[in-house]
Amino acid sequence: MRAPLACVGDLVADVLTPALVIDLDAMERNLARMAEFARAKGMRLRPHAKMHKSGVIAKLQVAAGAVGVCVQKLSEAEALAEAGVADIYISNEVIDVRKLARLAELAKRIHLAVAVDSVLGVDRLAEVLKTAGSTLDVFVEIDVGQGRCGVAPAAAGALAHRVVSHGATDATGQPTGMRFAGLQAYHGRAQHLRDPAEREAAIHHAVTLARAAQSSITSAGIHCPLVTGAGTGTFVHEAASGVYGELQAGSYLFMDADYAQNRPAPHAPVFEHALFVKSQVMSRGVAHAVVDAGHKSHAIDSGLPRVWRSGPSAASSGFADIEFGNGGDEHGILTPRSDAVPALGDTVWLVPGHCDPTVNLHDHYVVVRGGLNAGVVEAVWPVDARGCLD
Amino acid sequence: MRAPLACVGDLVADVLTPALVIDLDAMERNLARMAEFARAKGMRLRPHAKMHKSGVIAKLQVAAGAVGVCVQKLSEAEALAEAGVADIYISNEVIDVRKLARLAELAKRIHLAVAVDSVLGVDRLAEVLKTAGSTLDVFVEIDVGQGRCGVAPAAAGALAHRVVSHGATDATGQPTGMRFAGLQAYHGRAQHLRDPAEREAAIHHAVTLARAAQSSITSAGIHCPLVTGAGTGTFVHEAASGVYGELQAGSYLFMDADYAQNRPAPHAPVFEHALFVKSQVMSRGVAHAVVDAGHKSHAIDSGLPRVWRSGPSAASSGFADIEFGNGGDEHGILTPRSDAVPALGDTVWLVPGHCDPTVNLHDHYVVVRGGLNAGVVEAVWPVDARGCLD
Repeated sequence: MRAPLACVGDLVADVLTPALVIDLDAMERNLARMAEFARAKGMRLRPHAKMHKSGVIAKLQVAAGAVGVCVQKLSEAEALAEAGVADIYISNEVIDVRKLARLAELAKRIHLAVAVDSVLGVDRLAEVLKTAGSTLDVFVEIDVGQGRCGVAPAAAGALAHRVVSHGATDATGQPTGMRFAGLQAYHGRAQHLRDPAEREAAIHHAVTLARAAQSSITSAGIHCPLVTGAGTGTFVHEAASGVYGELQAGSYLFMDADYAQNRPAPHAPVFEHALFVKSQVMSRGVAHAVVDAGHKSHAIDSGLPRVWRSGPSAASSGFADIEFGNGGDEHGILTPRSDAVPALGDTVWLVPGHCDPTVNLHDHYVVVRGGLNAGVVEAVWPVDARGCLD
Repeated sequence: MRAPLACVGDLVADVLTPALVIDLDAMERNLARMAEFARAKGMRLRPHAKMHKSGVIAKLQVAAGAVGVCVQKLSEAEALAEAGVADIYISNEVIDVRKLARLAELAKRIHLAVAVDSVLGVDRLAEVLKTAGSTLDVFVEIDVGQGRCGVAPAAAGALAHRVVSHGATDATGQPTGMRFAGLQAYHGRAQHLRDPAEREAAIHHAVTLARAAQSSITSAGIHCPLVTGAGTGTFVHEAASGVYGELQAGSYLFMDADYAQNRPAPHAPVFEHALFVKSQVMSRGVAHAVVDAGHKSHAIDSGLPRVWRSGPSAASSGFADIEFGNGGDEHGILTPRSDAVPALGDTVWLVPGHCDPTVNLHDHYVVVRGGLNAGVVEAVWPVDARGCLD
């Protein structure tokens, strides 16, 4: 792990670059808004910690009312458990037997859940749980439009039956081994449709498929306790569906440049940009400037970062009229439109295109209180699950 | 740092996924081919370690004849120095005064060089070197077509003069502080032009500009000791120029899917793919399979990875007829064309689109001897400079 680029108490102006910076005031407002939304709608909130990869932040979410967090990889769950997170759902499949054995061990230490979408996966999981003598929740994943993992809705009953068939009860009558917990039904593609009506239509379709999967499970004589899914782009629709009981949105906490391009749905909570890459001009031409932040400091899978002009208030802050060009791993090329070319040594704030993989490129968050201009570093948090691939 | 995904002595089949794997036999052949090319042409070789970020590999390159390595960031230089690399050139500008102070300290421990492209950068560097009492080599960067950093060739003389004006000599008459070392003249864009004639033309232009910069320096009454630059796509042309004296190619050692799309120049050395991401099928549909390697395991700035079919020999290995689709941070979606859909649990080898930022996503190299099918893990090397952003 690299040395942090700032110390607690530093002025934001003194944070070395390129650094991953949280505007803590903005993050706290986002945290409260989503918690309040879930509470008002009577929904369980299980934010996706694949976004922030931080034990500190996961615990803040739980303190604000979340039931736990999601992750995508076993090693992320291990890292967050190590950081003190007690309730984690791996909303993804694990098929390797050695990883499954680790999963069964982890299930002894925390409340753990995992998704399945194959008979092989279910049978292997049953075997390791039996060997370890541990228990976890299992969600059957269905494909609701993502075209990636998950079984067809009509096949959900058979797979749920397979899960239940491996179940057992202990001496006190409590279920052990695999507990069938419901359906994983996430529509990733729908999150980034720009038109709110298109997002609503996509989730309407997902809800129809989730309902069909519920019927398939009920027809197999099995109770389906929960449907879980949703993301920052669509959660208002899943919450209104009457089918979903748990929301997995993650990006709401930081917001990224990609999500900022979604036109909001009516009455949806509004979230602020709270995650930035602080960069510095390290070379300057006549009509362009070069900052020390390339795509090794920010992910570009969902577009390039946008340049942020941080004013003394939210109203005076916003995107600058400067184009950010990809200058390779270590450079960003700024071409101002109406604005002046920044000077050598100037600070330039960037809003990343996509939070999750941007966070993965950094070892620490530099956490700033009091805004990006005159703020002070209140904390430095490790990105606990950075680089957790397996 | 994460736990390695394999141990020395493991069979390659037992390496956990997704893992960054070096085919050591192929890497050693690439290493020898480039070393032999530079030797035959009488060129200095200073491979770019921003590619591999590894002290072990840098030392192998030096043992094979390289004069040292390049990096792009101060913290990369610090990490590789810590790993025992004794001669490092930061082929990039450093403008922050606290970073410059670290640079001056590092210059006491190793033979260090840095690039400059501004009067402010030169003056600040002179100041910290004076304070620290240390010495390093300084290259004036010129823009030879990249459109990023670097001064215009005609301005090279004035900046070199600024460097020399800060120079001093110690009691024995040796130069101290800044030593003017020559020109940094790298044309990054030229590397990826597919047609060898286009690459040659681009470097012909770069050579013309480098010659103009040399003249500008000579006219200022200053000797220009070296022109350094070149990459894996073009180094044969810089080597033939009579102007360049040092080659900075880095990717030759691993080769990536992007470079493999360049049509080779006549008589250029041929390099093999030596870097792979080992992935596993963790979900499977009727017409597609999903592997556990998304863009958190491989960079996508230069295109998606390509699926590799590893045969028992080089002749029986090559790209598979399977399309790799971006499935997000943690998933790759395989859609076979003529090939069969891989089975759940199958190993799938990927050749990353771009080595440098792919390596940055991993904590370790799993180093395999004896090929990807039946090989054995000979070593696990840390990616020493992973995450070195500042």
